[in-house]
Amino acid sequence: MNTLSPTGRTRIRRHSERGRADRQDLYDVLDAGLICHLGVVIDDVPHVLPTGYGRDGDTLYLHGSTGARSLMAAAEDVEVCVAVTLVDGIVMARSVFNHSMNYRSAMVYGRPVSMVSDEEKLAGLRAVVDHLAPGQWDVLRPTNRKELAATSVLALSLAEASVKIRTGPSADEEDAPGVWSGVLPVRQVFEPPVPDPELPGGIAVPAHVAARVTR
Amino acid sequence: MNTLSPTGRTRIRRHSERGRADRQDLYDVLDAGLICHLGVVIDDVPHVLPTGYGRDGDTLYLHGSTGARSLMAAAEDVEVCVAVTLVDGIVMARSVFNHSMNYRSAMVYGRPVSMVSDEEKLAGLRAVVDHLAPGQWDVLRPTNRKELAATSVLALSLAEASVKIRTGPSADEEDAPGVWSGVLPVRQVFEPPVPDPELPGGIAVPAHVAARVTR
Repeated sequence: MNTLSPTGRTRIRRHSERGRADRQDLYDVLDAGLICHLGVVIDDVPHVLPTGYGRDGDTLYLHGSTGARSLMAAAEDVEVCVAVTLVDGIVMARSVFNHSMNYRSAMVYGRPVSMVSDEEKLAGLRAVVDHLAPGQWDVLRPTNRKELAATSVLALSLAEASVKIRTGPSADEEDAPGVWSGVLPVRQVFEPPVPDPELPGGIAVPAHVAARVTR
Repeated sequence: MNTLSPTGRTRIRRHSERGRADRQDLYDVLDAGLICHLGVVIDDVPHVLPTGYGRDGDTLYLHGSTGARSLMAAAEDVEVCVAVTLVDGIVMARSVFNHSMNYRSAMVYGRPVSMVSDEEKLAGLRAVVDHLAPGQWDVLRPTNRKELAATSVLALSLAEASVKIRTGPSADEEDAPGVWSGVLPVRQVFEPPVPDPELPGGIAVPAHVAARVTR
């Protein structure tokens, strides 16, 4: 089994029974998320930046698709923390104290490296597009040099990472008579695509987009 | 209009057209999210912690429902950044470069204060429960002193905050013939509740829980 080797920062101290040591669990959480939250320190102040990403093997590529290029630049070659969190349910117990959430959570620590060459940038962009919009890469025109020059992609090794997963009902110890207890499942779904109003008529939604719709 | 007054940290530099100045937009994003990501610096290293929260007026209450009490403790009285992000869609363009995401994003900076008295803790817990599980507070037995002693709640002022919202299709400038362009909407839904298997028979799902189901 390809395992995650805990360091002082990624060893799970609280609720260690929720920790997962299999590297595949890390891949699964990262691949299931849509955005990550990138933590970076600037002048002693933490900043948390929602960021698009993609994974290729043991490398996480970060792309500041939500703007904030300057914060992305500040994350180059310094210690960062990247969190990907999926909420799976609200755990309702018989007491306030035992309320909880079901979730899958990945945390990665490391020093991101900025992609410099066109080839590096393209590899990173491809990972991000394949993650957020699988199938799109093959139908798009090639990215031009001007676009590449304006693009910043960071690569972060997945060497130092941890995964926590909580499932199931509450850990209620008592039985408060008559009070319901259980989980309200939460799920992220894709709804039917909305074409760009300026799209010329006759261009149908491509199969790889339609296939993602979950309702 | 009750507005957000930008500081050096919350002034929106990139895509300023996406910034919102109305404080109500901040409330709407915070109230629509389920978890926040709390950024805190420990020994010069940023940590990003998924955290449950609730809002009461201009105070955000943070509760470490996902464990990691020690990280919560490290956030007391030091500068933190809290991000709440809702992904609303994947914006597919005709070029790689113009791919984007629709989202609502709130960012809050400040120094969280730890709740000390039972009254303070209960006020914070109530905000968190009302946010994550509205209606539950009224059906649960009172929280006891032992539980309160084991509970840590942080309060963060919403004085320094910013909001960014992106909507609509891509900003494609060119028309790549035949390539589809549009938005794949993303939505977080609540599925039918799953009762705790150890729940005694005859206890029905309460109306305030059933009412949240979106599909």
